[in-house]
Amino acid sequence: MAGSFAIRDKELRDTVFGIVGLGLIGGSYAKALRRLGVKKIIAVEKHSDTLSQALKEGVIDVACQAGDESLKEADAVIFAVYPAAMLAFIRKYAAFLRQGALVTDVAGVKGALTAEAAAILGPGIDFVSGHPMAGREGSGFMNSAAEIFDGANYIVLPSPANRPENILWLKKLALSFGCRSVVELSPEKHDEIIAYTSNLPHLLAVSLMNSPSLSEDTKFFIAGSFRDATRVADINAELWADLFLGNKYNVLAEIGRFEQELARWSEALQSEDRAALLAMMQSAAQKRKALKNA
Amino acid sequence: MAGSFAIRDKELRDTVFGIVGLGLIGGSYAKALRRLGVKKIIAVEKHSDTLSQALKEGVIDVACQAGDESLKEADAVIFAVYPAAMLAFIRKYAAFLRQGALVTDVAGVKGALTAEAAAILGPGIDFVSGHPMAGREGSGFMNSAAEIFDGANYIVLPSPANRPENILWLKKLALSFGCRSVVELSPEKHDEIIAYTSNLPHLLAVSLMNSPSLSEDTKFFIAGSFRDATRVADINAELWADLFLGNKYNVLAEIGRFEQELARWSEALQSEDRAALLAMMQSAAQKRKALKNA
Repeated sequence: MAGSFAIRDKELRDTVFGIVGLGLIGGSYAKALRRLGVKKIIAVEKHSDTLSQALKEGVIDVACQAGDESLKEADAVIFAVYPAAMLAFIRKYAAFLRQGALVTDVAGVKGALTAEAAAILGPGIDFVSGHPMAGREGSGFMNSAAEIFDGANYIVLPSPANRPENILWLKKLALSFGCRSVVELSPEKHDEIIAYTSNLPHLLAVSLMNSPSLSEDTKFFIAGSFRDATRVADINAELWADLFLGNKYNVLAEIGRFEQELARWSEALQSEDRAALLAMMQSAAQKRKALKNA
Repeated sequence: MAGSFAIRDKELRDTVFGIVGLGLIGGSYAKALRRLGVKKIIAVEKHSDTLSQALKEGVIDVACQAGDESLKEADAVIFAVYPAAMLAFIRKYAAFLRQGALVTDVAGVKGALTAEAAAILGPGIDFVSGHPMAGREGSGFMNSAAEIFDGANYIVLPSPANRPENILWLKKLALSFGCRSVVELSPEKHDEIIAYTSNLPHLLAVSLMNSPSLSEDTKFFIAGSFRDATRVADINAELWADLFLGNKYNVLAEIGRFEQELARWSEALQSEDRAALLAMMQSAAQKRKALKNA
């Protein structure tokens, strides 16, 4: 079976890619792959106007509105749709994926996704899970750009079943896109960290906008701190409901830790403990500076 | 006494300004006033190198390391130092302020500041409190810029003792700086609103950085949401300890309201209530969009 993982020995210019979902992220993959000069890009996207636009811009070569025979040509398939949509697609169209193909995804929270996808795909197709730590405001193909990968980190989350050469291939692809770092870790550890670095900031932004203190006059009193703190509150609710529910226990733990920090604030303010306030702020300032230089 | 408020009838090009404190904000006022072509700018700043730099750049005309006779020439004096330092300065040097002068400040939280300052200054000097909703990263004169006022909101917080013509003068000055809106309200209402729009986002950013979930690896998993949510965690601890303590009750109330929002998240996650999650996120997204367009 080893020989069937053809992409190992192919140069990128000889490799055929499939992309399922041509939104902000899928479109960005397509543009980054085009920039790399890959052999062919086959896109599956339900909106025909998006497909027309991508064909017109020369970003893709083959346009499909659903899974079909043309996908069999793909050496690697990238799923850039919601986790639930990805599983539904695989269930319906797995027969159109070539034996020996490498399949990857871009989901920001993994949960049981990796195991479920691998189980449906079977042993002849290698599902190597990963995603870029990248994104930008807005959504849809019209906002996609190859540049979202520039300087970003790429996370690769192998399962024990993955072939080492395929894991390596995905890492090299991310670096070719312009990513600065490629980090490998387990899906479990990944979801734990993401609950803190991504889920929590999003739910804090939403909570800040939903505070009953928001009024008609708020807009006059807003400077950078409020704007920054709420930027991601303009959220894709459907997508994020999946992400939050898929990472429920880790997110609940993060909310708990955050509530502990708020309790420290309340305590220090109530007792007018200036030293405690200073210590909290100085510690945070130092950590934030270190992050900036990281 | 009415005639002694000379600045009412003076064009800006005939007006002499004093600025106490040439840091980020004081320096920005000096540069904005220079751009407006005012007659003279007298700066008081304890760091002699800052004074030399400002003189060299032509941003100020007269440099003092402490309050002295030269301040008597100032028609208007802007305090751009911490609230405690401002009160200490007025106690020590009030005799060097000219009778009939207009004095203003830039403190982001007012508390009892307005009343205390006015009591020390006495009835011959009109203290009109206000501040721009402006700022930028970093600190110090080297980061100051006239442009911080461009498109910003300016808040004016009159007391019943203020002369209407002086309130009007300060509002016009803010518009001349390039501010987009000038909003007048009571110091009490102001502190209530600022607890939500400024104090709370700052303490959320500090809390997020201080979470025990932060680790050496965090940096690999950070995208825009975490960066934005923690930007202001690189905070001036001494200044903000004053601001938080000066607005203690309002800040505690805001923390309480925010905790209620977090409780809604925990509840919805625990019961896997997708509809509740969607409703919270959709509401926040809508409000954030409205803010963007405001």
